[in-house]
Amino acid sequence: MKASLLPSQIRQKNSYLCVGLDPDLDKLPDGISKSAQGVLEFCLQIIEKTLPFTVSYKLNTAFFESLGAEGWKVMEILFSHLESRNVFAIADAKRADIGNTSRQYARAFFENMGADAITLSPYMGFDSIEPFLDYPDKTAILLALTSNPGHADFEMQPLANGRKLYEEVLVRSQSWERKGSLMFVVGATRATELESVRALCPDSFLLVPGVGAQGGDLKEISEKGMNGSVGLLVNASRSILYASSGSNYAMAASKAAFDMQQEMERYLRKL
Amino acid sequence: MKASLLPSQIRQKNSYLCVGLDPDLDKLPDGISKSAQGVLEFCLQIIEKTLPFTVSYKLNTAFFESLGAEGWKVMEILFSHLESRNVFAIADAKRADIGNTSRQYARAFFENMGADAITLSPYMGFDSIEPFLDYPDKTAILLALTSNPGHADFEMQPLANGRKLYEEVLVRSQSWERKGSLMFVVGATRATELESVRALCPDSFLLVPGVGAQGGDLKEISEKGMNGSVGLLVNASRSILYASSGSNYAMAASKAAFDMQQEMERYLRKL
Repeated sequence: MKASLLPSQIRQKNSYLCVGLDPDLDKLPDGISKSAQGVLEFCLQIIEKTLPFTVSYKLNTAFFESLGAEGWKVMEILFSHLESRNVFAIADAKRADIGNTSRQYARAFFENMGADAITLSPYMGFDSIEPFLDYPDKTAILLALTSNPGHADFEMQPLANGRKLYEEVLVRSQSWERKGSLMFVVGATRATELESVRALCPDSFLLVPGVGAQGGDLKEISEKGMNGSVGLLVNASRSILYASSGSNYAMAASKAAFDMQQEMERYLRKL
Repeated sequence: MKASLLPSQIRQKNSYLCVGLDPDLDKLPDGISKSAQGVLEFCLQIIEKTLPFTVSYKLNTAFFESLGAEGWKVMEILFSHLESRNVFAIADAKRADIGNTSRQYARAFFENMGADAITLSPYMGFDSIEPFLDYPDKTAILLALTSNPGHADFEMQPLANGRKLYEEVLVRSQSWERKGSLMFVVGATRATELESVRALCPDSFLLVPGVGAQGGDLKEISEKGMNGSVGLLVNASRSILYASSGSNYAMAASKAAFDMQQEMERYLRKL
């Protein structure tokens, strides 16, 4: 599903939840085999049971790559599955390289895999992102301010021009020519900075990971991060995937997603 | 081969050449099938014929990922092949994410794939790189200053502390605790900045891409970039891989690698 359909989907499901698929072999529930096949079964069950409460899924490529070629195949199957489910399917891949290489990544994820969006590291600048912006109906999601402690090392560095590095990323990238759309990753543990992010990109959609296991607060994020057309996708991974380690994991995931959707519905009413 | 063996290998082969394997289907020579199988055959031939002149190979993951699961399998086969060849095998993957995700990438490339090193984007800071530094005998290669035009967007940004962003990456990362080793990517088209890079990291190995197709000058790089134990890996990809588009491609690649080795031998004599 292309990004332009997100606002109507959010209104229809009363949810701006993105479920992150980070299938860790060590955390798979009882009864699921610790293999690529087990991961596929697990993810399909999670998707099936959370779909009513979710407008987006984010596949964390690392967890599939660590399973080798079979893991890559599972990722292909899952993206193909999501294409028929009317959801916004994100490859959380944190890629970007020189132009001719980024074109290969764009081909891998947008054309072959059928992902609607991909997360990208902005470090190498415009021409490393451009190949992803060249696809109408696809979305480049740029890292701005992330939820990990290391964000202090570079992202928060004050520049000579008065901005912080992540602010420079927000400002500069919005001027880049594009056929597709542009979003930003802003970590939920950084809710204090969400207002300044919103001031710099009032119209952009923000992908906000870090709710749940990483400690972000949904209420604060929603209040500070929403714009007139919602403009938020809030991701939860571990708190949904591993809501139960027993054979009832899919129902527990469904319940965890439902609870988040219910809370989101309250905040949406205030818009 | 671990990084600590590079200086002696460089002296033995009189070469600090790294051959970049970026197998582009559209550029494969006549007679090679445009498929994952063709890419495997092509890369094995290139390795076979350039091995006498080369201490390192760099597999650009994008070009394998764009071939899907079969491409991933080819990458696995190639890394396994390189393990027996006494060369420094780099996954040019430009990864990095929050800690628990980076651990999965480290597992994918260091443990499963058997790569000796991986290129990483520093944007997310220390804890996104830490899992890769946790492996004795493995090497994290951090992007510092890249060879593409977009380096001007963020890497060259002057910080409030007087450094440029790429200089901050060089300085800060060298203080990070590590069990393995740390190298930096410095683009060859930035030879003017190589001296300032050397001043900031006198002892580090630098991986210098951009020679050949991207226009970097080997003489200038060698003069400005070498330290007492060489400290340089100069990468060439397209100028070697596609030295001929005919069925003599492997011999042409061998000749192109030999020519670079011969030039490198001259610069090594001056050390």
